Amino acid sequence: MSLVAEARALAYEVSDPAEDTRAFRNALGQYGTGVAVITAVHEGRPVAMTVNSFAAVSLDPPLVLWSLRNDSSRAPAFLAAHRFAVNVLAADQMEVARAVAVSGADGALAGVDWTEGVGGEALVDGAVARFECRVHDVLAGGDHQILVGRVDRCSVSEAEPLLFVQGGYATPEPLTQERADTGVQALPQGDADEPAPFAQLVTAASHRLSRSFDEVRARYGLGVASSRVLKRLGGGPLDVDALATTSYLGPRVVEDALSELLDNGLVARVGDRFHQTPAGHDLREQVAESARRFNDAALAGLPEADVAAAQRVLAALARDRDVPVSTTPHKETQR
Amino acid sequence: MSLVAEARALAYEVSDPAEDTRAFRNALGQYGTGVAVITAVHEGRPVAMTVNSFAAVSLDPPLVLWSLRNDSSRAPAFLAAHRFAVNVLAADQMEVARAVAVSGADGALAGVDWTEGVGGEALVDGAVARFECRVHDVLAGGDHQILVGRVDRCSVSEAEPLLFVQGGYATPEPLTQERADTGVQALPQGDADEPAPFAQLVTAASHRLSRSFDEVRARYGLGVASSRVLKRLGGGPLDVDALATTSYLGPRVVEDALSELLDNGLVARVGDRFHQTPAGHDLREQVAESARRFNDAALAGLPEADVAAAQRVLAALARDRDVPVSTTPHKETQR
Repeated sequence: MSLVAEARALAYEVSDPAEDTRAFRNALGQYGTGVAVITAVHEGRPVAMTVNSFAAVSLDPPLVLWSLRNDSSRAPAFLAAHRFAVNVLAADQMEVARAVAVSGADGALAGVDWTEGVGGEALVDGAVARFECRVHDVLAGGDHQILVGRVDRCSVSEAEPLLFVQGGYATPEPLTQERADTGVQALPQGDADEPAPFAQLVTAASHRLSRSFDEVRARYGLGVASSRVLKRLGGGPLDVDALATTSYLGPRVVEDALSELLDNGLVARVGDRFHQTPAGHDLREQVAESARRFNDAALAGLPEADVAAAQRVLAALARDRDVPVSTTPHKETQR
Repeated sequence: MSLVAEARALAYEVSDPAEDTRAFRNALGQYGTGVAVITAVHEGRPVAMTVNSFAAVSLDPPLVLWSLRNDSSRAPAFLAAHRFAVNVLAADQMEVARAVAVSGADGALAGVDWTEGVGGEALVDGAVARFECRVHDVLAGGDHQILVGRVDRCSVSEAEPLLFVQGGYATPEPLTQERADTGVQALPQGDADEPAPFAQLVTAASHRLSRSFDEVRARYGLGVASSRVLKRLGGGPLDVDALATTSYLGPRVVEDALSELLDNGLVARVGDRFHQTPAGHDLREQVAESARRFNDAALAGLPEADVAAAQRVLAALARDRDVPVSTTPHKETQR
């Protein structure tokens, strides 16, 4: 671990973004964002676009912004409308992001449930926040225009938001004192005679295992996206759309990962589809084998019967979608 | 679960952001972001500021933006400088965000390791991405100014990024096919005769448990931040700074949560410090009791010996910070 940490402190890949767009996009992807569907009404019909350039600007007056690509086919529609709505997607709405991203200006919002906002814009059902805006300003921003909206109305629902980080969809895992206490930063040693609650242990173990696997992957020189794309291709040739859908990555990220894998001879292309080369297959096998050995090492020294029991318990917890949450607030704890 | 989901579809809290700034901030917080430290040089000295308004703008030319509050004490320094650097913080750099947020223009970057960029701006060591920019444009945005930077150089390191979501710090938990397969969206039923790998089970169980606890909390009418603040106050009175530090929430979010808790009579204030009222204490006990009962219900029906074994295994996994990641790429899998 400490070796990796030391190596990491020095290992910056430096680039000139004017020369290397892929590197720039990769760097931008390090900044996590939510996923927002922007909607407007154009000639009486809804248009929609998925973006991750949304940002808060001002509280008084209430302003927000997002950026629109000049050469987007939907740009004229958004620029002609004087209003837009921002729908911040929930963790279970990855399909909405995709439906909007693949549909043309016409097919916008096909298959997505929505209701009409004050100005007629589509408010996506189930979004965790929605901002209904008037266009306040349109500013030049290179190959994009920055649309600043004055928010007339906002609405919030209680749900987990969807995130887009390092090229892939994700959900947030909150940093809490408990998590710090139980293992992520440091585990209490010695005097911990009271066992940590079960759920906290599960969270701490989960985080520890997934970060360790990231180290395995990184040691083989594979980024998150490249690793995932290479793995997906193990089942046979796929095109970009199929890869994006099954790898839970954005299409542009998939394209960048494919370029990198092609450059390194790990993937080859036939027509629209991509497949593992023998070298790619071999590397993927090595990563999988390392992951298995890591898994074994993590569990080594623990009684086999304990591991089997843990497996049963975790499978039951993961599967159980109907644990009763029997709370009748303000009544039942009069003990 | 389904009852909660139905209730959620309807439960939008709607507000006019011009009238209710707290509601607007809360809605904005639903959009997850990374955490960026912006640095510049003013009169030969470094200035720094933590923001979550960073956004990508344009690829060609490479442009990014962030927003600066007009009445910030550091605004004159940032506006006088013709350059700035954006440092996207890593998951283990929450302390850097705090150090920068609390330090005045003078104390900027005290205790933070950094190196000098091309224009002299501080590049924070360990950041997951760094963008060295010339100021390209300064645009009006209500009570903020939007600084657009042309990126001269960017650098990326391989690490997990820090996130700020729903008022608190978090790390990303990637959505993967495996996670979908193992339990987050739906578990394979019936023909799953091959057991899911251990790590995937841990992740699926972890996610399931933490979302279920969120439901418990929400049923008591407590938001994420309010719930966490109320819990922290169980140990005795604390001021805003101490609360922000121990609850892993941003100071403004803590202030909003405190206002809400004060309004609802769950918290009272004495001087600079806040404490639970008897009603707050009572509610907190009810949540804790529900969580315990939820925990018991989730584990009910599983053999006690299995649960105890699972507890031992998870504790070992969470604690073990030195699992050997013994990979010698390209050599060891010649089986």
